[in-house]
Parts: sequence; structure tokens; C-alpha cells
Amino acid sequence: MGDNKMINIYDIAKMSGVSIATVSRVVNNNPKVSEKTKAKVMEAIEKSGYTPNVFAQGLGLKSMRTIGILVPSIADLYMSRAVAYIEDNLHDAGYDCILHCSGYTAAEKETHIQLLLNKKIDAIILVGSTYAGSDDETHNTDYIRRAAKDVPVFIINGLVDGDNIYCTASNDYQASYDVTTALIENGCNKILFLTDSRSYSANQKKEGYKQALSNAGLKSEDKMMIYTENSIPVVKNLLNNLKDIEFDSVFATDDAMAVGAIKYALLKGLNVPEDISIVGYNNSTLCICSEPELSSVDNKIEKVCKDTCSRLIDILKGEENVPNQSVVACSLVKRATTDF
Amino acid sequence: MGDNKMINIYDIAKMSGVSIATVSRVVNNNPKVSEKTKAKVMEAIEKSGYTPNVFAQGLGLKSMRTIGILVPSIADLYMSRAVAYIEDNLHDAGYDCILHCSGYTAAEKETHIQLLLNKKIDAIILVGSTYAGSDDETHNTDYIRRAAKDVPVFIINGLVDGDNIYCTASNDYQASYDVTTALIENGCNKILFLTDSRSYSANQKKEGYKQALSNAGLKSEDKMMIYTENSIPVVKNLLNNLKDIEFDSVFATDDAMAVGAIKYALLKGLNVPEDISIVGYNNSTLCICSEPELSSVDNKIEKVCKDTCSRLIDILKGEENVPNQSVVACSLVKRATTDF
Repeated sequence: MGDNKMINIYDIAKMSGVSIATVSRVVNNNPKVSEKTKAKVMEAIEKSGYTPNVFAQGLGLKSMRTIGILVPSIADLYMSRAVAYIEDNLHDAGYDCILHCSGYTAAEKETHIQLLLNKKIDAIILVGSTYAGSDDETHNTDYIRRAAKDVPVFIINGLVDGDNIYCTASNDYQASYDVTTALIENGCNKILFLTDSRSYSANQKKEGYKQALSNAGLKSEDKMMIYTENSIPVVKNLLNNLKDIEFDSVFATDDAMAVGAIKYALLKGLNVPEDISIVGYNNSTLCICSEPELSSVDNKIEKVCKDTCSRLIDILKGEENVPNQSVVACSLVKRATTDF
Repeated sequence: MGDNKMINIYDIAKMSGVSIATVSRVVNNNPKVSEKTKAKVMEAIEKSGYTPNVFAQGLGLKSMRTIGILVPSIADLYMSRAVAYIEDNLHDAGYDCILHCSGYTAAEKETHIQLLLNKKIDAIILVGSTYAGSDDETHNTDYIRRAAKDVPVFIINGLVDGDNIYCTASNDYQASYDVTTALIENGCNKILFLTDSRSYSANQKKEGYKQALSNAGLKSEDKMMIYTENSIPVVKNLLNNLKDIEFDSVFATDDAMAVGAIKYALLKGLNVPEDISIVGYNNSTLCICSEPELSSVDNKIEKVCKDTCSRLIDILKGEENVPNQSVVACSLVKRATTDF
């Protein structure tokens, strides 16, 4: 954003007495704006010296046509696939991608968003629901709303309210509810829930699990919801060392944890799925690598990324009525670790 | 490179009658250059209007401190891990990364390198030995030498000769030779070699395999070296449908192919490693996901990336005597699919 960082689209809207949508239309040369309104907005822009990059192109200024992508870790299977889809879609539309890997702490996220805002970027895409809040600290997404004053912010797999924020999430609540219900209908009533995250989507999955138990008249117990690492050996050892907890099935919020449960079953001589049903999440390559092959929720990452990029391109073109939030349905891919 | 694209460091060197190393030293304010030489070079630079970004900082001009990273596919396990390490190292040194995913064809690679050169980047890192040539077309790496006239080019896992080109490769020839020799010493003499690539490193692996057979007095046969897809189900089906080819072991140049061989063994009721030994490559998460767990070559991707970034940072600081090529030794990680 450079030299005029203090002035943003909200200031221009206020100064010219119009909505931010109207400012956006003016700077994108949208013909639907009256000449009178256009003149008012242009006057405010000229007075302020406002040259935010996102609208620079419409003003005949030079846009770098560059999108900042922030992921906590590009080595993660889900995120590297997401970035592959995003990069593909954006390049087709003539945009470059600056990639930052932020890590998972609040401080790291804020620092990296600021680093991106200091570049001449047209928009930011936050990949991973970790950006949409966490229940182990105050669920604070104000840093996203602050960034959205400078450029449009797109969130992949999390819903955050705010102007200039656009979110696409897979329906993890429903998917988790459906998997848990299917396990119950197949005779499981001691379903161990494993998660490696306290992100927005992890919470959605946990809520879906709890609601399904509740609807089936079962109690959800804290000891059955275990927070661990998304690692095959860690989960294998964890289950092997569990004391005083019986379980007849495992539902994990990422595939590597579910494979850890398969390894545990093999170690204990348990038959999968006869003795223990196991369901993973993300439908990654691990599912067809493990033995038996893993049933897993396909959270439609390709569609989520495509929707995100298509809305981003619309926004940067100055299109109106671009929806702020959209939710994509998931589906269970049935393999050999479940009877359903 | 912008407006002065026609003028490069070679032109400046020629115009001022000095080596490119000397030009580099001058623009980086290296004190070892005599005032007389410095004056000559600066005169040539001023005449030419030469402002290549890589040396811009040394001239007091503004560098974007941005590195272009090119990968064929960021969804690939090896490449996403490499980019994670690179991004981490470069950010620590204050550089940003622009990521392009090029695909695998020669035309795509050249197009994307040109797109990167059009940006204000300080250097390019090519991730993956596909950039270092292929034996299914003319082994042409001229496009890399052309790019290296504009900015330093770093290649991860491939050796290409040329000024301003810096390569780090894992010693795939030696690793492949060692694995093949170990298989032979353990009684295998019909070793199926599977590869999904005709890249520089794939060729190194093939040569290591052939040399080990030859040194053991065994013939290497074309029918035993199969080019296929790096896909678990594809390899499983391929092996199941092989006619007139007997094999007692499989050595694959990427882990997914090796897991396909494990799936084939399970399908046929073969015991691994008693009836068939299997070795993969890259030591990815797939190795500890499969059952039995997969022995695989660790090609030291973290070290390769660290070495690359450290030389890149040295070059951009104007350090002298930065080696153009370095080779990192691999090691076999022994798991349950081999007896050794």
C-alpha cells in the first residue's frame, strides 16, 4: 500500500458521501455510476492521494497483478493442494502469487499479513481455517478486518464477518454430523474423536460430532475428544497408551491421524472395520496408501479454491453483488475402514 | 528486468573490458576492486542504463528483495516440502517468494521463466530436476543459460553448466547404485526399475541401477526399466498385468510407485520382503503410511534447499567464490519392505 497507507476505501467513501461499493465502481470505471457521483468520488480520491493497489488498475495506475497467499505450512498435504489449485486459477487470469508461510501462532499470522500488505498486492488469500480463529485463545479475527481495510481478503475454509472479506468454507459441520450418525447407525457408540487443531473448521467438526451424538441420545464426553498431533506414529502410540478409555471407532479430522488409528489396530490385532471403524478427513493420498484403505471425507478442496479465485477475479474487476460467504458440501468417500 | 532488458551483465563486462565477476563486485561495492576498475565499470553502467535488479541494491537502487520460485507442481510431495524449506530460509533472510507452477513441458517452463524475469525478481530457483533436462526431447537447457543472463538461476536437484547458474543435487546416481547393489547382495537378480520421469535425476538413478547390475555381472534389460505414472493404483494394475516379465524386487524412483508395488504384492498374496523386496525414493509420509512400511532413499531435501538458499544469499550479497555446483549424499532409510 506504500505511502498512502493511512487513507483507505472507507475514508474515500466517507469523504465523498457514497458507499464503498460505489467507490469501487468508480475506480473500476463501471459505467453504471452517474457522472455526478463519479466526479465527487474522483475529487475525494485526488484530494486524499489515495492510490490503493487493488483499484489502481481502474485508475490507469499500474497494478502489479499480484495476489498474496498466506498458508501456515506449505508442506501440509491439504494446503499444498489448495495452493496448487489457486496458483493455477490465478495464473490463468493473469495474476502472480506471492507465497508466505506464516506458521500457526497469532503473532506470526499478523506479522506475515503485514508483510504482504507492504507489497503491491491486489488481494490476500488466507489458506486454512486456522486464520479464522481458534478456541485456545480469544477468538480474535480483528487482524483480518484490519487487513481488509487495505485489500480484499479471501479466506479458504473459515467464515469471518466483515466488509471486504470473502469466505469459502466446506461444510465441515454437516460432514462431521453425517459421519458420526453413520457410525452410530452401524452400531458404534464409543466414537473417539481425534483432532490436531482448534481452528474454525476443527470446531465445526467437533460441533457436528457432538450434535450427532446428542440427536442419537448419546452423551458426548470430553475424554472421547482428544487433541493430538497430525502424525501417524504419534496417534498410534497415543491410542496404544490410552488408559480407562474404551472405543469402538475413530473419527479423525485429518487423514494422518486416522492412519495412526489403523496402525494401532494392526498392532493390537484388531480387524478393521469389524472390530473398529475408522474415518479420516481430507481424502488425501494417504487414504489409498494405507492398508486397509481409509474411508475419508472429501472436503472438495478443488471446488473451494475455484470458487475463491472466481470471486477474487470478479471483485478485482469491480463486479457488484459478489457474495461474501459460500459453503461447499462435503461427501464421504467409502473405502475399507468402514462398513458403510 | 523491465526497461533495460537488452543490456545484461555480460554487455557491461564487455564494454568495460573486465570479467562479470568484477562487474558484480563493483555493483556490490566490494572494496577489493581498484578505483580505476570501478570507474571503468561505472562508466559503462551509466552509458548503458543498465539497472538489473539483482545488483540494484548495491547501486543504491531499490531491490524488491523477491525470489522467483518455479516448480512443475506444488501438489507434489517432494516439491511442496522443498518450497516449504526454501520459503522458510529466504524469509529469514528478508526475501519474498513469488511462486509459479509451470507444468512439465518445455514450452510451459520457458513461458514461466520469462514471466518471472518480467517481474522485479533478484533470482530464480528452479525446483525439480525436470528443469535440468530430459532424454525424451533434445536435452536442451539453453533456456536456463538465457535466463541466467538476467538474474542468477539456482537449480534444485539437477546439474546444468553455465555462468550465473548454481546447482545443488542429491547424489541420486550413487544412491541408486547402492540400493541396487544391496538388492543383488540380498539375492535379488530380477530387479524391476520403475520411473515416472525422464528428468536429470531420473536418468542418474537409471544409470546407477545399470552400473550396479553391470558391476555384479548382470545384464540390464530394457524391459526391466519401466516408465509409468507416479500413482499407487496405476502401478498396482501395471504390475498385475505384466506379461512375460519375472521380477523378484522393485526399485521405484518415487514412493507412490513403490507403494503401488506393495499393493500388487498384497493382491497376489506375496510376502514382503520374503517373496519380493521393494524400495522407494524420497522418504515421504507414504513410507510410514503403507503396510508394510516402505524402505526408501532419503534424498536430503532439507539440506539441498538449505544449501541452495545459503548460496543464493551469498551471491546476492556479492560474495566471491560461491561454488557453482554441490552434491549432497543420500541415505537409505530401512523399513519393512527390505531385508537390509
